[in-house]
Amino acid sequence: MPYTDLPLDELWTYRPEVTRPTDFTQFWSSTLQEARALSDRTILSPAQTPLTELRAWDVTFSGFAGDSIKAWLLHPAGAGPFPLVVEFIGYGGGRGLPSDRLGWSASGFAHLVMDTRGQGSAWPNAGPGATADPHGSGPAAGGFLSRGIADPSTSYYRRLYTDAVLLVEAAAHLDVVDPDRIAVTGTSQGGGVALAAAGLSPLVRAALPDVPFLCHLERYLQLASPDAAGELRQYLSVHRGSSDQVLRTLSYLDGVSFASSVRAPVLMSVALMDEISLPSTVFAAYHRLTSTDKEMAVYPYNGHEGGGTTHWVRQVEWLRARL
Amino acid sequence: MPYTDLPLDELWTYRPEVTRPTDFTQFWSSTLQEARALSDRTILSPAQTPLTELRAWDVTFSGFAGDSIKAWLLHPAGAGPFPLVVEFIGYGGGRGLPSDRLGWSASGFAHLVMDTRGQGSAWPNAGPGATADPHGSGPAAGGFLSRGIADPSTSYYRRLYTDAVLLVEAAAHLDVVDPDRIAVTGTSQGGGVALAAAGLSPLVRAALPDVPFLCHLERYLQLASPDAAGELRQYLSVHRGSSDQVLRTLSYLDGVSFASSVRAPVLMSVALMDEISLPSTVFAAYHRLTSTDKEMAVYPYNGHEGGGTTHWVRQVEWLRARL
Amino acid sequence: MPYTDLPLDELWTYRPEVTRPTDFTQFWSSTLQEARALSDRTILSPAQTPLTELRAWDVTFSGFAGDSIKAWLLHPAGAGPFPLVVEFIGYGGGRGLPSDRLGWSASGFAHLVMDTRGQGSAWPNAGPGATADPHGSGPAAGGFLSRGIADPSTSYYRRLYTDAVLLVEAAAHLDVVDPDRIAVTGTSQGGGVALAAAGLSPLVRAALPDVPFLCHLERYLQLASPDAAGELRQYLSVHRGSSDQVLRTLSYLDGVSFASSVRAPVLMSVALMDEISLPSTVFAAYHRLTSTDKEMAVYPYNGHEGGGTTHWVRQVEWLRARL
Amino acid sequence: MPYTDLPLDELWTYRPEVTRPTDFTQFWSSTLQEARALSDRTILSPAQTPLTELRAWDVTFSGFAGDSIKAWLLHPAGAGPFPLVVEFIGYGGGRGLPSDRLGWSASGFAHLVMDTRGQGSAWPNAGPGATADPHGSGPAAGGFLSRGIADPSTSYYRRLYTDAVLLVEAAAHLDVVDPDRIAVTGTSQGGGVALAAAGLSPLVRAALPDVPFLCHLERYLQLASPDAAGELRQYLSVHRGSSDQVLRTLSYLDGVSFASSVRAPVLMSVALMDEISLPSTVFAAYHRLTSTDKEMAVYPYNGHEGGGTTHWVRQVEWLRARL
Amino acid sequence: MPYTDLPLDELWTYRPEVTRPTDFTQFWSSTLQEARALSDRTILSPAQTPLTELRAWDVTFSGFAGDSIKAWLLHPAGAGPFPLVVEFIGYGGGRGLPSDRLGWSASGFAHLVMDTRGQGSAWPNAGPGATADPHGSGPAAGGFLSRGIADPSTSYYRRLYTDAVLLVEAAAHLDVVDPDRIAVTGTSQGGGVALAAAGLSPLVRAALPDVPFLCHLERYLQLASPDAAGELRQYLSVHRGSSDQVLRTLSYLDGVSFASSVRAPVLMSVALMDEISLPSTVFAAYHRLTSTDKEMAVYPYNGHEGGGTTHWVRQVEWLRARL
Amino acid sequence: MPYTDLPLDELWTYRPEVTRPTDFTQFWSSTLQEARALSDRTILSPAQTPLTELRAWDVTFSGFAGDSIKAWLLHPAGAGPFPLVVEFIGYGGGRGLPSDRLGWSASGFAHLVMDTRGQGSAWPNAGPGATADPHGSGPAAGGFLSRGIADPSTSYYRRLYTDAVLLVEAAAHLDVVDPDRIAVTGTSQGGGVALAAAGLSPLVRAALPDVPFLCHLERYLQLASPDAAGELRQYLSVHRGSSDQVLRTLSYLDGVSFASSVRAPVLMSVALMDEISLPSTVFAAYHRLTSTDKEMAVYPYNGHEGGGTTHWVRQVEWLRARL
Repeated sequence: MPYTDLPLDELWTYRPEVTRPTDFTQFWSSTLQEARALSDRTILSPAQTPLTELRAWDVTFSGFAGDSIKAWLLHPAGAGPFPLVVEFIGYGGGRGLPSDRLGWSASGFAHLVMDTRGQGSAWPNAGPGATADPHGSGPAAGGFLSRGIADPSTSYYRRLYTDAVLLVEAAAHLDVVDPDRIAVTGTSQGGGVALAAAGLSPLVRAALPDVPFLCHLERYLQLASPDAAGELRQYLSVHRGSSDQVLRTLSYLDGVSFASSVRAPVLMSVALMDEISLPSTVFAAYHRLTSTDKEMAVYPYNGHEGGGTTHWVRQVEWLRARL
Repeated sequence: MPYTDLPLDELWTYRPEVTRPTDFTQFWSSTLQEARALSDRTILSPAQTPLTELRAWDVTFSGFAGDSIKAWLLHPAGAGPFPLVVEFIGYGGGRGLPSDRLGWSASGFAHLVMDTRGQGSAWPNAGPGATADPHGSGPAAGGFLSRGIADPSTSYYRRLYTDAVLLVEAAAHLDVVDPDRIAVTGTSQGGGVALAAAGLSPLVRAALPDVPFLCHLERYLQLASPDAAGELRQYLSVHRGSSDQVLRTLSYLDGVSFASSVRAPVLMSVALMDEISLPSTVFAAYHRLTSTDKEMAVYPYNGHEGGGTTHWVRQVEWLRARL
Repeated sequence: MPYTDLPLDELWTYRPEVTRPTDFTQFWSSTLQEARALSDRTILSPAQTPLTELRAWDVTFSGFAGDSIKAWLLHPAGAGPFPLVVEFIGYGGGRGLPSDRLGWSASGFAHLVMDTRGQGSAWPNAGPGATADPHGSGPAAGGFLSRGIADPSTSYYRRLYTDAVLLVEAAAHLDVVDPDRIAVTGTSQGGGVALAAAGLSPLVRAALPDVPFLCHLERYLQLASPDAAGELRQYLSVHRGSSDQVLRTLSYLDGVSFASSVRAPVLMSVALMDEISLPSTVFAAYHRLTSTDKEMAVYPYNGHEGGGTTHWVRQVEWLRARL
Repeated sequence: MPYTDLPLDELWTYRPEVTRPTDFTQFWSSTLQEARALSDRTILSPAQTPLTELRAWDVTFSGFAGDSIKAWLLHPAGAGPFPLVVEFIGYGGGRGLPSDRLGWSASGFAHLVMDTRGQGSAWPNAGPGATADPHGSGPAAGGFLSRGIADPSTSYYRRLYTDAVLLVEAAAHLDVVDPDRIAVTGTSQGGGVALAAAGLSPLVRAALPDVPFLCHLERYLQLASPDAAGELRQYLSVHRGSSDQVLRTLSYLDGVSFASSVRAPVLMSVALMDEISLPSTVFAAYHRLTSTDKEMAVYPYNGHEGGGTTHWVRQVEWLRARL
Repeated sequence: MPYTDLPLDELWTYRPEVTRPTDFTQFWSSTLQEARALSDRTILSPAQTPLTELRAWDVTFSGFAGDSIKAWLLHPAGAGPFPLVVEFIGYGGGRGLPSDRLGWSASGFAHLVMDTRGQGSAWPNAGPGATADPHGSGPAAGGFLSRGIADPSTSYYRRLYTDAVLLVEAAAHLDVVDPDRIAVTGTSQGGGVALAAAGLSPLVRAALPDVPFLCHLERYLQLASPDAAGELRQYLSVHRGSSDQVLRTLSYLDGVSFASSVRAPVLMSVALMDEISLPSTVFAAYHRLTSTDKEMAVYPYNGHEGGGTTHWVRQVEWLRARL
Repeated sequence: MPYTDLPLDELWTYRPEVTRPTDFTQFWSSTLQEARALSDRTILSPAQTPLTELRAWDVTFSGFAGDSIKAWLLHPAGAGPFPLVVEFIGYGGGRGLPSDRLGWSASGFAHLVMDTRGQGSAWPNAGPGATADPHGSGPAAGGFLSRGIADPSTSYYRRLYTDAVLLVEAAAHLDVVDPDRIAVTGTSQGGGVALAAAGLSPLVRAALPDVPFLCHLERYLQLASPDAAGELRQYLSVHRGSSDQVLRTLSYLDGVSFASSVRAPVLMSVALMDEISLPSTVFAAYHRLTSTDKEMAVYPYNGHEGGGTTHWVRQVEWLRARL
């Protein structure tokens, strides 16, 4: 992968126009309001896992439309309260097994890993999902990006972002969690979800979106590589003439629009050879953040894998300095 | 593509064991019964199309669970009744535009093109779909093959096959259709659906499955090329340990099991370089047909495109000699 | 496929220099004159086809050097005269079977589908050809683009363009055709041939080149994707030092040069993710058209498949408003 | 990936001839003897890592020729002694960061992750290496498989296997380790190294080779996919006539030959769609094990990723029942 | 590339039925007779080349239908007569430059490199061609394999084989050539041409076909990899129903049929990972040779590149022992 | 391959900043000094080869650290002294067999073909190597580019460039060589080595770097295609944070820095569709040459194969006019 986008110096000043619909705030506040009204209580049961040095719980909480959503909760031995990191998963992956992500809890944090509704069956190494998406859709390409894309109200990501916010809200009530020290993170799709959660919930005190996807989606549609942008482009290539409608839906889901609502500290990352989360789309979101405390970690010779565990170590240090 | 399966002489005698569940007939009769109970009347409105020499109608009928399903009806000028060909679409395609498939009606047949619920957004040349699949699912890989695969009752193809049978039943009541001269056809997935419809409905008087997919699915899972078998294998590669459950579901959906219920005349086709509808899976279904009048058209140097319009010409001649 | 060329707003003003040889007109008028001198009469015999609602004829006419060229003629029942659409086929395809293209005749037009000499053996779905190219060539890469490329007089496309003009001229004498209502169309290579025919024959009253190939060939050679530009580049990569000679030949064949002779109304199309007919090469021809009535249909999320049948519907409406 | 090898029922009885050189035992005992003679003491220093709930040490020990080899040691809080799992890394990866593999220590085991000399620079997600391979080689293809392949004494894997055995021996002297409860594990190349260590060291009380590579290497050379078998085949395709010499070297390195020396309990895994560790090569080693307690976990729909963390959970349970 | 065909021990006994038409000998004798009747004299002019230590001539001779065919003649300084090696080029390549193949003449042989009519424009490294193929063809896929394939009399390879025989005959009259010491060689397509020349001309006293292509063509069509067998399969996949006709044509061109006429000593080569000249097709020809002196060089870990210059060294030694 | 870099007119003026370390000259002079101190005498023995018209010798000389390096020496019959061309091989290839490169000696030159230490096992057609690289390295990706890349003193190319200079120095003492007429050449990696040798040794009187690789390495890292830039980018993608260190090492190895020391006449070549030796990196070196006599041969429609033997003919003519 060569550089997939503008040179780095141009990225630092790249501030494209990305339109945020006038009723954006209204759309999301009523969406969340409806979901909260259908919420049931959060259930924790001991997770089946060979882990002995950390605590692991199987979590069920209410997401969009009151749907049952799964998550794992891991935390160190002891009663806490611990600072919490809520993690969202990359495209196609599920929450997997409790033992798949041990870094945060082994470093003294409570750690929630949210399952991604309907996903979790795509990559053998990404981990199975255990959560249904009990909502059908109109004609869609394979995958999740084009599901319900004809309208913001039916779009898949409306449901997913809502799950994320409701998990943050549910987490604030858990005994082992310190509600004043909640951060969100995630890689790729998970980074986009983290941005949305940070933009929508004041409970989020820090955000760590890692090579976030779902930003500046129009540019992504035009320039991302075929493998990366396949589903939405497939949809548009078949449903010729629907692009205005689709772009309207995307404008309610774009990480750039959420970024302008984020005030919490942010540590973001970008990889200059990323073919999926194109660097310009990541910077477009970064420049919109209204956080006074924000950092961008640049990985010049990496693709979509970004900074990997090297970046995770930096995340822990950055977060400890703030939460 | 070299030969993708056994040599032709072995295919002519290839009769593998493919288990049909003991409650197969019961499962499908109750499925259809439930759907019929929720059926509404079929609606025809003139299709928007530049065609002047043929009649084209936009059809809405009730499928699985009373869901609204779209189709096109084309027929020659005049009141009929005409012999009818019901066509099901290949994987990923939708009914497209009325002008996309004119051969049957230009040759004196009424022609119904059923939309495939949820599909119709995958290939620019395959035609857009216009029908929702309003049923969610548990975790699934992209696409439609693994949706609801954990149980026969929730599987996507239970819904699709039911749509097909109910369209045949609805068609028998249309004025322009001669209810004693109804045939089903389709290529690839459409051929699998045609087999299912022929096995489930006595109204079907002839079946023309073209390089049918969805047959001998266990062998397909083990031997089809990666591109062809991706979704279901992805699911199984992530949900390790679920293969018994998945294979059980597939046993209710396998074209080989439907074939043994087919008594109407059948003209099937197979391509020896087909990487998707592996020749052995097609022959496995063919040998199970109980039809006394059956033919297999073999295309030795073709892949999944099969016999193309050359085969269609043969289909018309074969069908005229029978309906 | 991401955007394969300039952004759309730059395309609307992209007017590159493409040199038209000073003897361009002379070259083509003498070429056509020689061919006409060798012409024999056009023969129509009933086509073998299952079609009953449309008329279909197997046409043999005289092309370049008096060579026998095949075509299909389809038209509605009745004596006509009908407006005529002459269609040229994309690269590698032949005229196929009469039933392969029924839209125009089913919509009230006479429709001539010209076979492409020597082609028609490349893609199983494109349809077989039935016309020889009885002229050998010097060393050439596989395919047809580099045949005889050392000189305009021996180049394959000199022969093909001549066939196209002579078919238009022959068509004007057919009883079922209204000679004052003749249009030309075609996709890709067929669009390039349509442009040539429209530039060379005053009988053409409208042209509908769909994602036309064969325009601005020098830019195409430099920038088109490897798969798309393989043959000519292969030739040039082997015959190092021959590029001036080859570019001279191409200058007699370039759609941009033909465009400046076109005065009839034109509906062109372009796809912004087209890797073969690069958008800038299509716009280069479009801007050169001297037609006062011209339109460009832009498909922003499509590749070389362009607008498909969606565009065909637009073509019919556009043409009905003019012929 | 379809099934990449024999059907499962044939694999259960597949016992090919794989020749073990007559001086195999002698070769390895003198190799180890020489290395031990050059050994220095093992050094542990606290690892730089954000982990707080587990202990992590940066280990330096003496491997082949007294070379300095790095490893990580992780274990639960407390003094132990703990049962120990020694892990070897897959091809191209290095030991990475201490936080990359937390499962075993979070489940109550001490865990040594050996760095692979010279490797650790190939895959962004595999983790960097920190150990030199200070031995040059004759002409070799890229990578490590063909380094020094002209003779067993110079081959890269002679050095690597020796490192592995010396790490097991060093580990038995660590305070936190219970020397009677040492197991070895690894995936792919790491599984091959684990087999070698288990065959060479009586200190190994259990072995868990996961989709082990480096078994039945002649068959691998003839049948593995191009990507998988590239380096050694490249070498042989260039050095025509050297195959006897190369196969002789490989006979000293083949996992099948080590397997016949293994008496400890073994839990092996195999994936039937594995293109690298071909199922027959894994079973060839499995059938040679002289262990009275052995199990094979079969993943029918997986490729080289094998059973992933699902298999790891099974490993922990299996190991707890034995150590 | 793994082994692309049967195991080596089965190849040594593989003797398939390959039908030789009853009029095979008659077809070729009359073909050659007609060509000889149109022959003009062979012309040698000094080649433009920087070579100083070897002599190089630009040769023009009469081939099929009296067509002008080019070749290079190289030989050591001195008047000779020298033993002669006539070389035919692999598919897509031309005779290139005189300096492209210096081994034979630098080793004391006269060396004729025949240009391949129409070819020589496909691979930058293969060398340009300088010979026209002035015969057109019916519909054909790109490339040369399907040109004129509808009948033996029009097939491209009838022309090419005839060129080869006539060059051998012309060479026998050159002063620098010893007519009793003429050998033929070639790689891939060139090896197939060499077999044909050896089967058709008693002037050939030794043949060295290197990984010969064009043998057992029916098996090749069914089993060779897509890239290798593309053109003929493309033709057959489009022209469904033409396979009997095409196989009949191929039966006049198949190296296996020529092999049974070869009595001269033969050194053949085969590569077990060859995807183009499948090992079984090479052995099929080898086993048919009636030569009492024949050898097969087996390269087990090579693809279509075969034994390369290692094999050439063996060829020189083998030939010196015989001519 | 489309144009892989800037348009040609921009390349003619492209003069990027490429930093040459202040101790560059010192680094190389002490490197060479150390190597010379360890040098042994050069050994020539007759090569085993069937060649009879040219003389061929197997050469062993002392390279970096006194290591034994192999080469072939070819020259015309006679005692000489001859002008000499020293050739360096492209990446992955070895010196092969003496008969692999006969053009220069058959044209009256002495010709030294240096083996590339450790290489010569990668491509079947590139020829085997016979020279060890007896120096180990720290963690490295497969291949040679990242070996020892952490420091200039340990880098692989420090060793290779030193071999090249010492061969030139050794050659000047051979009887058959005219020490005042020594040129260096090579393709790709060999062109980069030729540039280094020309920059480091005043014995070099002419340089002919053909599509030279190893120039402007930072740009190459950022923009070359994935296949071309794999190894170094892999290293950097894993060893995140090491890029300053790596770029420092590369600054001692960059052809652009050597170019500014070259005063001898230079004939360079560049291919505008080259994905490996990007045109801008070749021009960056070209513009830095301080030679008053320099030429650039531009191959606009070629990839990394460049001008092939067409360019070689030009090289001979150019060189004869100068040496």
